[in-house]
Amino acid sequence: MSAILKQRVRYAPYLNKLRTPQQCVELFKHGQYLGWSGFTGVGAPKVVPAALVDHVEKNNLQGKLGFNLFVGASAGPEESRWASNDMILRRTPHQVGKPIAAAINDGRTQFFDKHLSMFPQDLTYGYYTRDKKDNDLLDFTIIEATAITEDGSIVPGPAVGASPEMLSVSDKIIIEVNTKTPSFEGIHDIDLPVNPPFRQPYPHTSADYRIGRTAIPVDPSKVVAIVESHQYDQVPPNTPSDEGSKAIANHLIEFLEQEVKYGRLPENLHPLQSGIGNIANAVVEGLAESNFKNLTVWTEVLQDSFLDFFSSGSLDFATATSIRLTEEGFERFYENWDEFTKKLCLRSQVVSNSPEIIRRLGVIAMNTPVEVDIYAHANSTNVMGSRMLNGLGGSADFLRNAKLSIMHTPSARPSKTDPTGVSCIVPFASHVDQTEHDLDIIVTEQGLADLRGLSPKERAREIIDKTSHPDYRAQLTEYLDRSTFYAEKKKSLHEPHILKDAFKMHLNFQENGTMKLDSWDQKF
Amino acid sequence: MSAILKQRVRYAPYLNKLRTPQQCVELFKHGQYLGWSGFTGVGAPKVVPAALVDHVEKNNLQGKLGFNLFVGASAGPEESRWASNDMILRRTPHQVGKPIAAAINDGRTQFFDKHLSMFPQDLTYGYYTRDKKDNDLLDFTIIEATAITEDGSIVPGPAVGASPEMLSVSDKIIIEVNTKTPSFEGIHDIDLPVNPPFRQPYPHTSADYRIGRTAIPVDPSKVVAIVESHQYDQVPPNTPSDEGSKAIANHLIEFLEQEVKYGRLPENLHPLQSGIGNIANAVVEGLAESNFKNLTVWTEVLQDSFLDFFSSGSLDFATATSIRLTEEGFERFYENWDEFTKKLCLRSQVVSNSPEIIRRLGVIAMNTPVEVDIYAHANSTNVMGSRMLNGLGGSADFLRNAKLSIMHTPSARPSKTDPTGVSCIVPFASHVDQTEHDLDIIVTEQGLADLRGLSPKERAREIIDKTSHPDYRAQLTEYLDRSTFYAEKKKSLHEPHILKDAFKMHLNFQENGTMKLDSWDQKF
Repeated sequence: MSAILKQRVRYAPYLNKLRTPQQCVELFKHGQYLGWSGFTGVGAPKVVPAALVDHVEKNNLQGKLGFNLFVGASAGPEESRWASNDMILRRTPHQVGKPIAAAINDGRTQFFDKHLSMFPQDLTYGYYTRDKKDNDLLDFTIIEATAITEDGSIVPGPAVGASPEMLSVSDKIIIEVNTKTPSFEGIHDIDLPVNPPFRQPYPHTSADYRIGRTAIPVDPSKVVAIVESHQYDQVPPNTPSDEGSKAIANHLIEFLEQEVKYGRLPENLHPLQSGIGNIANAVVEGLAESNFKNLTVWTEVLQDSFLDFFSSGSLDFATATSIRLTEEGFERFYENWDEFTKKLCLRSQVVSNSPEIIRRLGVIAMNTPVEVDIYAHANSTNVMGSRMLNGLGGSADFLRNAKLSIMHTPSARPSKTDPTGVSCIVPFASHVDQTEHDLDIIVTEQGLADLRGLSPKERAREIIDKTSHPDYRAQLTEYLDRSTFYAEKKKSLHEPHILKDAFKMHLNFQENGTMKLDSWDQKF
Repeated sequence: MSAILKQRVRYAPYLNKLRTPQQCVELFKHGQYLGWSGFTGVGAPKVVPAALVDHVEKNNLQGKLGFNLFVGASAGPEESRWASNDMILRRTPHQVGKPIAAAINDGRTQFFDKHLSMFPQDLTYGYYTRDKKDNDLLDFTIIEATAITEDGSIVPGPAVGASPEMLSVSDKIIIEVNTKTPSFEGIHDIDLPVNPPFRQPYPHTSADYRIGRTAIPVDPSKVVAIVESHQYDQVPPNTPSDEGSKAIANHLIEFLEQEVKYGRLPENLHPLQSGIGNIANAVVEGLAESNFKNLTVWTEVLQDSFLDFFSSGSLDFATATSIRLTEEGFERFYENWDEFTKKLCLRSQVVSNSPEIIRRLGVIAMNTPVEVDIYAHANSTNVMGSRMLNGLGGSADFLRNAKLSIMHTPSARPSKTDPTGVSCIVPFASHVDQTEHDLDIIVTEQGLADLRGLSPKERAREIIDKTSHPDYRAQLTEYLDRSTFYAEKKKSLHEPHILKDAFKMHLNFQENGTMKLDSWDQKF
């Protein structure tokens, strides 16, 4: 037993339960229901999942040792190895990585995605374990800790996620104590799950509000094993901002300045939510360099770009459910621990993504879709309506409840044969995750469409004119004109569509590799 | 001045501003922004709108005296007359009546529908008056009152709706004091609008919680006219429950009993939300006759069926933003005022439809869609994707945030030529208002599909097998099988679709009057 492990585990009885990862393998059986800590690829268990997949690979148990797996959002590379070895029978609510997406899209893993604020509560309601006879919900939760307190409570690492809820409904608990990273004690603010009819209001009225609990209490008798882990999280490098994403950020910052000018936002804005990806990075970079001061962030995940945002002096406080940094990012974070952590707090995803708090604070939400249609329905999840990317995440938690709901996207993306073969503005979204009732602003490198107070027909003109790629503007306008003409005859002018043509851009992409049509009369 | 008016208006200075409805006409100009009180056809102003439309009809001012009109939800028959006389340039967030729907679908009125919980706050943010130069938001609010307090505060009638927000951002106020109905004083619980960053938690932790304010405070200097009104609300008779809706209610009650048995609901359930229509009525009737006791209701509108529900003794308390009764219903309500009002409270729609409170209380939400697709996306608003019915209403406020989100619908409806020409279960919803991430249960007279924890493919089988009409079951299964076969090749098995075929049932209905296809290879 390492000295550092003894130091981190301040509740001595747990140390009697010390096992190697390999000694945990015997605890698991095919078909069990497992919770893992983790969110957006950090804070997930590492060595126990690795030992299990080693066991499967070594003994050719693919398909014979599979689990119903619940993780706050995506886990780390161990999840990919599980997926490749058919160890994930069922999975919710979000995932990242080619092997797990492949397992879903090949039909080997039953996946459903769910609002990240709802998944943990629905899990505690027993909604996902209806097939189990004995109402015991999860068989195991495997949680990464960076410290254990005197009463056996768990101090998570860089993610809180759904751990409080999972631990509350789990028969047995395995704790991976990560002694490679520093202890994250003090950085968390933990709300415990309370279900109706006993729920009380969340008292949060600002991004920096803390209820004051810094560890997750557990029933020590449920803890069946403690395992030491020496592994850093492995986060792939961030996609850098480019010309297009910078143009989007500029449009957005100009818009926010205008909102302040018109008195619709205060000078320090409202708390910001921002997603993952190069546009999100460009927006954060742009805000850090802007004239806005005393900003706050209420979001679900913080990335490397936030370190510069903190250092710029413009960001007073940020809160999320995970801090997903690259190895260099974590090094910088650890080296400047006090500077960063006094401005930072990690909460459970039920709280970070809470409709109640998001609406109260008037959050400004910004997310990237797969595609948006001309009436402002957005697809966040399924390419061509069917192929799952990563899942809904918290996009709809934020976009439904924000004071300003913004989607940012390139106007077009390349296909294999055409540099602008995929228009991100389409007549009819091939899958709808955000409805027209939820989006205020759509912005591409071409410009910004302000949809507030517009009827669907007005919205369509605004979206096409301001945000669509020039290669598609005439084609989309023609769809709208034809639909309007048709709807005039049919007396259905609220939201004109020709259903026969609505997916023709998608069909042409599927057949010919581009969304550019020869004509709207083209047959498929 | 009538004695009853003097009695009702306890703030004397208002009486100096007494006008006839006709004397108000001169106050209005083309293009103004107006707020009306009212919600679901009750509590709206009557005599001033009637005088204005009389004026338009008499002087042939159609199209020359039009307004941007905001009402909490639908207003009364005066709104229909306005629509017929092209007096509604722009309208949000919900409407009922053939003339207003015709104006929208003919393109004469620019309508946009919005979550009923969000519309009032977005109005106060200035989102709907961006074109106005002077940031003064509404020019007039015309509000029906049933009494005025000593400090000039307004006691509404059977609806609170968006009146608190409208009054807070209106330049001028006209009060119609309805002396025909009794004063509703004491029945309301009024929350005043507070915008970010100053919002506090709503303290409500049960349906019967009251903050204690019973009238809406206004700045008396803004009140430019008081008008007496002698008109009852005119609500059309309710659609009675029938065999189909009773079958749906039976499935639902059996399901709720099962949830209690499995410990997923307490014996008195959680607060119920129920919509308008014959299915909603059947469900309320079924609950009143069931073994459930000590029930509560947290909803947006109460109908006649609730009077029996109260009288049954099973319902402890109900709250909504409007009580929409027929004339007979109101008579019964007035005759048993004390019995009903001690169990009843009307709130603003921002509160009745608050995501914060709905989620906290664990509301059981039940609504009727236009159609639901096999993956559980629902269309609540647009027939064939384009023709507006009434609007979204509060359906998505409730369905997104409820503990149990239920949609109930007949499995099929008649077309002109086919008694089951329209399937309410379709491959792809022609408009999406509720996403697959928001629905737990779909129930038709055929049966109940429990979708919790299921992947899209599993959901599709459950929906088709349990809820679709037998006339369509094979056809829908064939769509799913073909899509699955296709998606297997394309490695997109998460949510299989053939986009080319997705709307064929709708197209066949448009061309041939029935959704029954000869074959999935049929061309359109």
